[in-house]
Amino acid sequence: MRVIRSIAETKKFISKIKKSNKSIGFVPTMGYLHEGHLSLVRIARKKTEFVAVSIFVNPAQFAPNEDLKNYPRDMKRDINLLKKEKVDLIFCPTEHAIYLPGYKTYVYIRDLGKKMCGITRPHHFEGVTTIVLKLFNIIKPDIAVFGAKDYQQALIIRRMVKDLDLDIKIITGKIIREKDGLAMSSRNRYLSVEQRKDATVLYRALRRIKEDYRQGFLDPKRAKKVIKQLIEKKNGRTDYIAIVNKNNLLPVKKITKGTLIALAVFFGTTRLIDNTVI
Amino acid sequence: MRVIRSIAETKKFISKIKKSNKSIGFVPTMGYLHEGHLSLVRIARKKTEFVAVSIFVNPAQFAPNEDLKNYPRDMKRDINLLKKEKVDLIFCPTEHAIYLPGYKTYVYIRDLGKKMCGITRPHHFEGVTTIVLKLFNIIKPDIAVFGAKDYQQALIIRRMVKDLDLDIKIITGKIIREKDGLAMSSRNRYLSVEQRKDATVLYRALRRIKEDYRQGFLDPKRAKKVIKQLIEKKNGRTDYIAIVNKNNLLPVKKITKGTLIALAVFFGTTRLIDNTVI
Repeated sequence: MRVIRSIAETKKFISKIKKSNKSIGFVPTMGYLHEGHLSLVRIARKKTEFVAVSIFVNPAQFAPNEDLKNYPRDMKRDINLLKKEKVDLIFCPTEHAIYLPGYKTYVYIRDLGKKMCGITRPHHFEGVTTIVLKLFNIIKPDIAVFGAKDYQQALIIRRMVKDLDLDIKIITGKIIREKDGLAMSSRNRYLSVEQRKDATVLYRALRRIKEDYRQGFLDPKRAKKVIKQLIEKKNGRTDYIAIVNKNNLLPVKKITKGTLIALAVFFGTTRLIDNTVI
Repeated sequence: MRVIRSIAETKKFISKIKKSNKSIGFVPTMGYLHEGHLSLVRIARKKTEFVAVSIFVNPAQFAPNEDLKNYPRDMKRDINLLKKEKVDLIFCPTEHAIYLPGYKTYVYIRDLGKKMCGITRPHHFEGVTTIVLKLFNIIKPDIAVFGAKDYQQALIIRRMVKDLDLDIKIITGKIIREKDGLAMSSRNRYLSVEQRKDATVLYRALRRIKEDYRQGFLDPKRAKKVIKQLIEKKNGRTDYIAIVNKNNLLPVKKITKGTLIALAVFFGTTRLIDNTVI
């Protein structure tokens, strides 16, 4: 396994791999890896001959008031975890190398990037698509694997890949959960013991709506009310509850197969997201 | 020479060329080719083993009030001209294939795209960078050649290529002029006989400022006044006169080596641009 910080050196390495005709799988991450990330690495490992993982906490996707500085980092632990997964390349550039002095280029997705998480985080997805495109251009993967917890992100990346004529297959993993149902996230470590318990309400609320759907309750307004009550009982502050078409993120009038239920909720200052597709 | 409309077919063809290890040169155009375009094709022909030219009038870089519909087109003539230059591939996609239903992805360059031409044409450069990136992803060139008349465009493309980690060398040709000095442009055909004569004032004004510079006149305010008077005498309506640093397009206090003098002037409804670097 090679660990490379330099863009030029990574490109040189990748170019050799390309010449050997090996297929390249890629998992972009912000590090502080958990089982969710590792499940994506395993998908890449299974599907491709050469697996690259990037570790880069991307300032362009954080707003000034967000947790860029406190975002958890542990490179040594990450490297060890990825070694065990038989990753071939860890690309971990510096912020300076990625955003050179005079950097000015950004990629954005109209509409999709302004809904849901894009309302409280208006520049977030522009930061995401920009860094992902840059990483794609450096790693040149055949396949890239994204987490399902960030549903909107994966949808936006798919749109970008299609629109920009990139020859990359986007695969989405499954949401990996703790035993009590909380979706794994690097941000879970911000939670107090109490908040950690409360936060399981996200998964329970999603399951409840799925169950209600099976029982014939199809009204999104009712579902939102149910979710909101459950969350508030656990001291959560709702950022948004979205009940939308999973392809265009537009609100649905009736919950049906293909409806996405997505939540963003604050516990204290920690913002967690979760979702399910009916 | 192959003429291909389909993106998928072009990608297949390019992939074969890539496998044969031939270097690829690329000249993106909006067609209605003149000697300016052909000079770029010749540069590509000299520097690379496989030359691709795209012909696509890109709606994303026109505003609703602009000349998209009237923009001159003559595919047969273009194909004949490019055959003579021994071009290997003409890629001439339909608008529908380039901007699929649900298309949402755009690339923009902060600052640089909002100055000069970006003031009257606020979405123009976003349209340019988006289509050029798409074409780069389809043609995968080693070298791409752009015209020098569109100085700001070439600067913006260079910035994009650097910022997005693309492995493409950008080359700028020289401005090719008619015998009387008018810079060649597909839009020159819009001019009436009278306007056509008047329009030579652009080149004369640029030469005048160069001459003044040699004689020690370094004040940009004075230079602007001189240019404006010359243009108005010829019934031109100034869109902008920019006297700026050629790298960042910021106004200079003194005309020096490396100062860009760029003009955009309306003759009737036809907007022409021209420039020179001191």
